[in-house]
Amino acid sequence: MTVQMSIDEMTAFLDEVFPQVRDDVGIERMDAEGLVMRLRVAERHLRPGGTVSGPAMFGLADVAAYVATMARIGPKALAVTTNCSIDFMRKPQAGCDILARAEVLKLGRALSVIEVRLYSEGTEAPVARAGLTYSIPPERSG
Amino acid sequence: MTVQMSIDEMTAFLDEVFPQVRDDVGIERMDAEGLVMRLRVAERHLRPGGTVSGPAMFGLADVAAYVATMARIGPKALAVTTNCSIDFMRKPQAGCDILARAEVLKLGRALSVIEVRLYSEGTEAPVARAGLTYSIPPERSG
Amino acid sequence: MTVQMSIDEMTAFLDEVFPQVRDDVGIERMDAEGLVMRLRVAERHLRPGGTVSGPAMFGLADVAAYVATMARIGPKALAVTTNCSIDFMRKPQAGCDILARAEVLKLGRALSVIEVRLYSEGTEAPVARAGLTYSIPPERSG
Amino acid sequence: MTVQMSIDEMTAFLDEVFPQVRDDVGIERMDAEGLVMRLRVAERHLRPGGTVSGPAMFGLADVAAYVATMARIGPKALAVTTNCSIDFMRKPQAGCDILARAEVLKLGRALSVIEVRLYSEGTEAPVARAGLTYSIPPERSG
Repeated sequence: MTVQMSIDEMTAFLDEVFPQVRDDVGIERMDAEGLVMRLRVAERHLRPGGTVSGPAMFGLADVAAYVATMARIGPKALAVTTNCSIDFMRKPQAGCDILARAEVLKLGRALSVIEVRLYSEGTEAPVARAGLTYSIPPERSG
Repeated sequence: MTVQMSIDEMTAFLDEVFPQVRDDVGIERMDAEGLVMRLRVAERHLRPGGTVSGPAMFGLADVAAYVATMARIGPKALAVTTNCSIDFMRKPQAGCDILARAEVLKLGRALSVIEVRLYSEGTEAPVARAGLTYSIPPERSG
Repeated sequence: MTVQMSIDEMTAFLDEVFPQVRDDVGIERMDAEGLVMRLRVAERHLRPGGTVSGPAMFGLADVAAYVATMARIGPKALAVTTNCSIDFMRKPQAGCDILARAEVLKLGRALSVIEVRLYSEGTEAPVARAGLTYSIPPERSG
Repeated sequence: MTVQMSIDEMTAFLDEVFPQVRDDVGIERMDAEGLVMRLRVAERHLRPGGTVSGPAMFGLADVAAYVATMARIGPKALAVTTNCSIDFMRKPQAGCDILARAEVLKLGRALSVIEVRLYSEGTEAPVARAGLTYSIPPERSG
């Protein structure tokens, strides 16, 4: 699938529609092969003991799935998550960023289905995997 | 099922193990009939347009499932979420807190399964529903 | 929500669009309060040891969610399951039918979201729960 | 991960513990790289119009996840599915077998997490994907 936006365009778009994640996430890679996003892990993402919280991982998977969809169809702020099933498999390593690899499995007219795997940076076994469905609103004719 | 802890005890326990949600959530009700928790919606939980973000709703469902499990088995900080499947069904109302109603469907030796429904306060149609599985670590004998 | 079809009409419709479940399932109740369907457990639904198989329970949840949706919108054979998340919680009792109770949580123009709980007949603790999403095709104008 | 059983041993084990799938499924490949299983599509797996039914696809994903787990830990008939989240993405092609590719994402002492993708034979876009969790019973000491 062809990518419709550059990383700079996507980052500017995210700043506008997801201002609260601006300081948290960055796009590492976005091309025909796939998408990689980084969660810059900070104090507010942690549970006692230093592990990254579930909601922080969910948030990363969610924004990665959104960006992977937007990369294909162009910026449509109104796309919304309708379902997410996430498996938490391993405790993230303390003091490490989390990387998300997203793959668009289906891009239909109304729905996209995305698989996301999360890794502690530098490790090979995923800490979590998620399947997400985004609902894509129909074009409003001008 | 009998509740093993009072709301005050549970709130003190949450302060210790989930310090980052201290200002965000409160227990409205916790008894044999079920659990209700409140997300005090603040600026940091919102998306542009005033709707509550997906990660904020996921976080509320996750902590409600945790508290519902702890209420039955007593405080075990090490219980961890292994799976969550969440359906986002309606846009939460702007300017409203979100209430979570949690029901423990199974409490086994190793796993608990919890159903959570989320509502904008004062409305009857749920904004989201989630099914969560918590893994409960075996007792360490002293 | 108002029911658009009688049990007889729905049974005739199912015979046409799901002929392979004709002998397996029956509608016990279908009204504004909800839907109950029965799986008449037979040899082909069992695993060694006499327990009902996962696919047989999935199939019952799936058809119950479909019927619950059709009951509200009238017969639209083309509605298709897009997602199902199912938790298997207890071993069904040997020699018992399975009852499914379905609740429509959302009925939108394009999607319905349904919660289904499965029980061994005569017991109160659910053997499984499922959340399903059905995609409802747009009306074709004649 | 090392495979503990040959395809012949696994097929004999499946005949014993899943006799009802004996004629339906076969193991195409089972080695350190992964597992591929085939659903030999027959009349009983079809919906009107010739498409493979949801329960038939669920059943294939379930048995593929089971076999992928057994291949690593050896035959333990008592392992049970605790959760499955499945996305149905495309209509399977009429007259084609379905192939399942399973990947074990986590193999813990008590749980395994498996990702399965289903394809109409000869096509590249998956018709469905599923994430499954199996509960592995503790060894009973003799």
